[in-house]
Amino acid sequence: MAGSTYGNIFKITTWGESHGKGIGVVIDGCPAGLPLSKEDIQIYLNRRKPGQSRYSTPRKEDDAVEILSGVFEGKTTGTPISLVVFNNNQKSKDYSEIASYYRPGHADYTFDAKYGFRDYRGGGRSSGRETIGRVAAGAIAAKILKQLGITLTTYTKSIGAIRISSFDADTIYNNPLYMPDADAAKKAEEYLEKCLSESDSAGGVIECIIDGVPAGIGDPVFEKLDANLAKAILSIGAVKGFEIGDGFDVALAKGTTNNDSFYMTNDHTVAKSTNHSGGVLGGMSDGSKIIFRAAVKPTPSVASLQKTVNKSGEDIEISIHGRHDPIIVPRAVVVVESMAALTILDAMLFNMSAKMDNICNFYKN
Amino acid sequence: MAGSTYGNIFKITTWGESHGKGIGVVIDGCPAGLPLSKEDIQIYLNRRKPGQSRYSTPRKEDDAVEILSGVFEGKTTGTPISLVVFNNNQKSKDYSEIASYYRPGHADYTFDAKYGFRDYRGGGRSSGRETIGRVAAGAIAAKILKQLGITLTTYTKSIGAIRISSFDADTIYNNPLYMPDADAAKKAEEYLEKCLSESDSAGGVIECIIDGVPAGIGDPVFEKLDANLAKAILSIGAVKGFEIGDGFDVALAKGTTNNDSFYMTNDHTVAKSTNHSGGVLGGMSDGSKIIFRAAVKPTPSVASLQKTVNKSGEDIEISIHGRHDPIIVPRAVVVVESMAALTILDAMLFNMSAKMDNICNFYKN
Amino acid sequence: MAGSTYGNIFKITTWGESHGKGIGVVIDGCPAGLPLSKEDIQIYLNRRKPGQSRYSTPRKEDDAVEILSGVFEGKTTGTPISLVVFNNNQKSKDYSEIASYYRPGHADYTFDAKYGFRDYRGGGRSSGRETIGRVAAGAIAAKILKQLGITLTTYTKSIGAIRISSFDADTIYNNPLYMPDADAAKKAEEYLEKCLSESDSAGGVIECIIDGVPAGIGDPVFEKLDANLAKAILSIGAVKGFEIGDGFDVALAKGTTNNDSFYMTNDHTVAKSTNHSGGVLGGMSDGSKIIFRAAVKPTPSVASLQKTVNKSGEDIEISIHGRHDPIIVPRAVVVVESMAALTILDAMLFNMSAKMDNICNFYKN
Amino acid sequence: MAGSTYGNIFKITTWGESHGKGIGVVIDGCPAGLPLSKEDIQIYLNRRKPGQSRYSTPRKEDDAVEILSGVFEGKTTGTPISLVVFNNNQKSKDYSEIASYYRPGHADYTFDAKYGFRDYRGGGRSSGRETIGRVAAGAIAAKILKQLGITLTTYTKSIGAIRISSFDADTIYNNPLYMPDADAAKKAEEYLEKCLSESDSAGGVIECIIDGVPAGIGDPVFEKLDANLAKAILSIGAVKGFEIGDGFDVALAKGTTNNDSFYMTNDHTVAKSTNHSGGVLGGMSDGSKIIFRAAVKPTPSVASLQKTVNKSGEDIEISIHGRHDPIIVPRAVVVVESMAALTILDAMLFNMSAKMDNICNFYKN
Repeated sequence: MAGSTYGNIFKITTWGESHGKGIGVVIDGCPAGLPLSKEDIQIYLNRRKPGQSRYSTPRKEDDAVEILSGVFEGKTTGTPISLVVFNNNQKSKDYSEIASYYRPGHADYTFDAKYGFRDYRGGGRSSGRETIGRVAAGAIAAKILKQLGITLTTYTKSIGAIRISSFDADTIYNNPLYMPDADAAKKAEEYLEKCLSESDSAGGVIECIIDGVPAGIGDPVFEKLDANLAKAILSIGAVKGFEIGDGFDVALAKGTTNNDSFYMTNDHTVAKSTNHSGGVLGGMSDGSKIIFRAAVKPTPSVASLQKTVNKSGEDIEISIHGRHDPIIVPRAVVVVESMAALTILDAMLFNMSAKMDNICNFYKN
Repeated sequence: MAGSTYGNIFKITTWGESHGKGIGVVIDGCPAGLPLSKEDIQIYLNRRKPGQSRYSTPRKEDDAVEILSGVFEGKTTGTPISLVVFNNNQKSKDYSEIASYYRPGHADYTFDAKYGFRDYRGGGRSSGRETIGRVAAGAIAAKILKQLGITLTTYTKSIGAIRISSFDADTIYNNPLYMPDADAAKKAEEYLEKCLSESDSAGGVIECIIDGVPAGIGDPVFEKLDANLAKAILSIGAVKGFEIGDGFDVALAKGTTNNDSFYMTNDHTVAKSTNHSGGVLGGMSDGSKIIFRAAVKPTPSVASLQKTVNKSGEDIEISIHGRHDPIIVPRAVVVVESMAALTILDAMLFNMSAKMDNICNFYKN
Repeated sequence: MAGSTYGNIFKITTWGESHGKGIGVVIDGCPAGLPLSKEDIQIYLNRRKPGQSRYSTPRKEDDAVEILSGVFEGKTTGTPISLVVFNNNQKSKDYSEIASYYRPGHADYTFDAKYGFRDYRGGGRSSGRETIGRVAAGAIAAKILKQLGITLTTYTKSIGAIRISSFDADTIYNNPLYMPDADAAKKAEEYLEKCLSESDSAGGVIECIIDGVPAGIGDPVFEKLDANLAKAILSIGAVKGFEIGDGFDVALAKGTTNNDSFYMTNDHTVAKSTNHSGGVLGGMSDGSKIIFRAAVKPTPSVASLQKTVNKSGEDIEISIHGRHDPIIVPRAVVVVESMAALTILDAMLFNMSAKMDNICNFYKN
Repeated sequence: MAGSTYGNIFKITTWGESHGKGIGVVIDGCPAGLPLSKEDIQIYLNRRKPGQSRYSTPRKEDDAVEILSGVFEGKTTGTPISLVVFNNNQKSKDYSEIASYYRPGHADYTFDAKYGFRDYRGGGRSSGRETIGRVAAGAIAAKILKQLGITLTTYTKSIGAIRISSFDADTIYNNPLYMPDADAAKKAEEYLEKCLSESDSAGGVIECIIDGVPAGIGDPVFEKLDANLAKAILSIGAVKGFEIGDGFDVALAKGTTNNDSFYMTNDHTVAKSTNHSGGVLGGMSDGSKIIFRAAVKPTPSVASLQKTVNKSGEDIEISIHGRHDPIIVPRAVVVVESMAALTILDAMLFNMSAKMDNICNFYKN
């Protein structure tokens, strides 16, 4: 549990600091025979790339991925896939000030408390750049899921108090905030302009819908599918809450309204008339869409004056300048999708040995 | 990841079905030398025991724990601690009806989908009785934490729309709903009476406060303390949401208001003037109280008529009678506390090897 | 890695001390739908039961297994299987002497060094009785393997300098030493009589042959099939060496003689003309028989006078009396077989997700 | 268990193929504050570098390591350390022949059986170059152990039938075979010359002595220190046997001679008068030197004519030419040492939480 490894069968290990030589990931346990190119991965990385709009940091980073191992003649070999994005934008700027104090809302203080010191350049390991490894691995997981008929749709559900009130999948990629509702996106942009003008930042909610997962994925007790999704999503830097299906609203519901009735479809399969459960019952997928949400806090780096302490133990006031996103939500959308893809895939691979019938079929024909 | 094991260093494995011979847990990795008696564990189990009030199932179960291994001369030996609660209340009633259909909101269908069949007696492995093993192990984890100066306070924050508006720790144990606000408890009881009279059930929110955790516990990337808490809590049957600190409210906040300022205390330690973070920054404890909440859905077993399907693929209507809690929340309070204790302890044990200085000090004196 | 859990998918956790209330194992990850009865397990346990001959301890222990969970209507449910053998033969004898000193060749000293104290009754957790849990779980693993066409044959290859020179499978179960060569067994009995008369004990070598494992089981790097077998076998108390195929003799061989040539069989499959490799190449099974050996040390408990120290730090001389096996080898045969079965099965379950083709076939039909 | 990760707390993940872009390792869980430079690692890598003598492949590979993350201002930060050796010597030679058949003694056939195809260039993932990642990580583990007063001495004990008969530590590094006995080394060189002249290859035995490990390291049941060493060593490509202490000779011994007597030293500590156990009792270190051996098979790549099959299912004869070591043993010495260092360190880190006293001391001062 050293902390930088995720997954049990499809297992990823990320490495790298914001201003180190690069950011990477090793994927161990990727099945052999998957066609895989740099482009498959790059398309995902581009969704979290900075500089896409005025609501993300204006830093210029290509984030171009290289495949160092595990792919031969265009296909995965079953051996570890090593991916790296070299950091080309490492400025030799002076970090002595930031090294000297603890930024509110950041991990500066907790890193020092745990390890005795820290790589203070651009947030070091706690930088949002750490998610590059997750997204690169998530792209591969999502590609495998797609071959199994499973798709993920992830988008910004709300920014501040601005909430989507309609849903159009194509719209998601047509606005810089990845909202499926053009009107809401417009209002959210106005809200962000206001935040920017006040040297402040904003938070929001991301929603993810996973379609096509067969019933029975996930395990009944500690490895519940929703429990693993919760861990996956909370492991993303700025996330402070997770809910599946009706989530916190279930506290207000009653059993008769919260239960989803089962019925038989015309092609004689079991289905649910509603989806309050969010696609999971007893920790296992129930065959309906899996729907969950993540609450993302406002970017802690703001230019406004803040109180804090320095390493000499003095109370000070600071103002954080530089190239910071006024909101993390839009760039985090693909990170949420990646963590969800990794979680679903791992549970599906593990599920293959759940029944004697399956094992006998596998080894006896 | 077979599903019934939790933790990495302090590792627990639970077993048992609702109507099998018993429910148990094996704790592997408990440090040696902890004084431990049956009573230490029983006191926790009694908090989840049925029949405590008219808002829990009237089933009579003693849930008396036995220690089968790992304790010698009153102290833990460092070897696995095997705990068991034998099921004495197994009625040889007729389960053929419940075996024949899928109860809405339960794991009946997903169990069949995954494994091909299920132990349908009383919910089998998905029964709330499975949490006995968690609570027994949690009692030990909490006892160790107490020796390290760490305490957990867990209670019902809301039932339906009834939310606590005051907090008195002693009150928690003086009402059947484990609420720290006597007035709210009274109103919640009225709400539950109404649910009962309507053959319906209710949900709610549980809150847990952990005091005394030193800064630096948890790990920066996938093993974030809050990520592991989220998994731990979502692994409890009826939980549909998790949030830490301000949780979902961060979506509405701005950076300037959501950030917690640091300041120096009179005894020259770093502290925070507010606690929006809920005690965790960058996945590591920040030295302030850890505060999180869990959303618990209404009991799915209700006597009202519900639509569902049977195993013959027919649409049917059912009504679930029997001894069911109209609300799970009060009995789940100690389960939430147990999972939190297990999670915090495991992170603390793992943290001991984070620094060379610590390792050298440990092995060189 | 708390120490009492083995396996990744088919995961077992053992518990219990020699003179505690019982010895048990929890098996998590056993596939659903396997017909399983107490007798399936008891037949394995009987092979390690004491009192079978004058070369094993005359203690009377029934070692009757009980199934506490995970089996419903005669079949495994996919949930944890809890097995227990209660200790009925716990004498309330005086252990104060054995508690006061460190027996040579035993784990008394190392237990104290690690944990500060120990359960000194009959060896506590380091007793041979700990293997009951392994054998109970191994019986289940072997039953699954049998359904996949895989059989394990395990026997005593040598005792002291007496080595088998012929092989008859039926003979294995017709002599108390589990040797496949009746003549060798007779000579070995004479050797053991001499050891007994000299208040001494003997060691030996156990060999295991696994037939029917398809090619490709195991993983290329750290999870090599032979590496996991080595760990499994060395985790048995008295084992001091492991070798696969030609083992230590390879040091004397040359490439031309040690390599196994491949050839095509009449039914057009790849086969090997010899089996120096012992059935594993590059950590993966090569389709031929897997053959390995374990070196087992003489029972450390001997009645002869031995030098040691007591807990007061004094040099003393002791003589260990009581009901001790003059040789561990025969009773360890089924333990070796059990650990091998667990290891092979786990690798086979994991192997199911090695190829995209397999995953697509599994989820798409 | 995807196969390329080793260790639980000090966890390494290796990646890379013989003729891919590079070979690397990510170390997750390295404690913070260890001074670390490229040179610390390079000195270990140089011990396995090819081209050191006429008994290793004449390929010219620099094997220069780069540190990509986890080290800041000359010290480890506690975050993952990513190390890479780029492959500079990738010849664009024609591999079509080797791609078409299965080399005896190699993993060609088993790779195809498992994954459906393989990276056939230079052995792909099964190449000896894979051990670069292990050695790079082992160098760091050994450096930490050294700070704790623990040293490892590893050497060639025998080549073919030539066995060392004296021991001089300095001599190890003064002959190309890493033997501690100059005379034996000379005779072994003569033996290897003969092998070379016959287009054949040789095997041998490597011994490792670990000095300074305190008593109590390792765990009583499945995570025995010697069990983990066995796995670690068998996970090295050409190793076919492992033994600790007297190893396979215990089969011939008697209890009275195999037991090590304890005695009190002049400074009142417990010691052993002999070391048949090889420094481990009951899976835990006993405070004496840990001594184990590995049997290494002859290089399977020989120029002599060998029978095999091709992928078209035809019986053929092949002769493997190219730059192959006539013996793997000398270059494997540092690989054995690395795996031992990783194993000991991981057990020591885990051991820190074995006792309540230790945990309380850690968190309460």
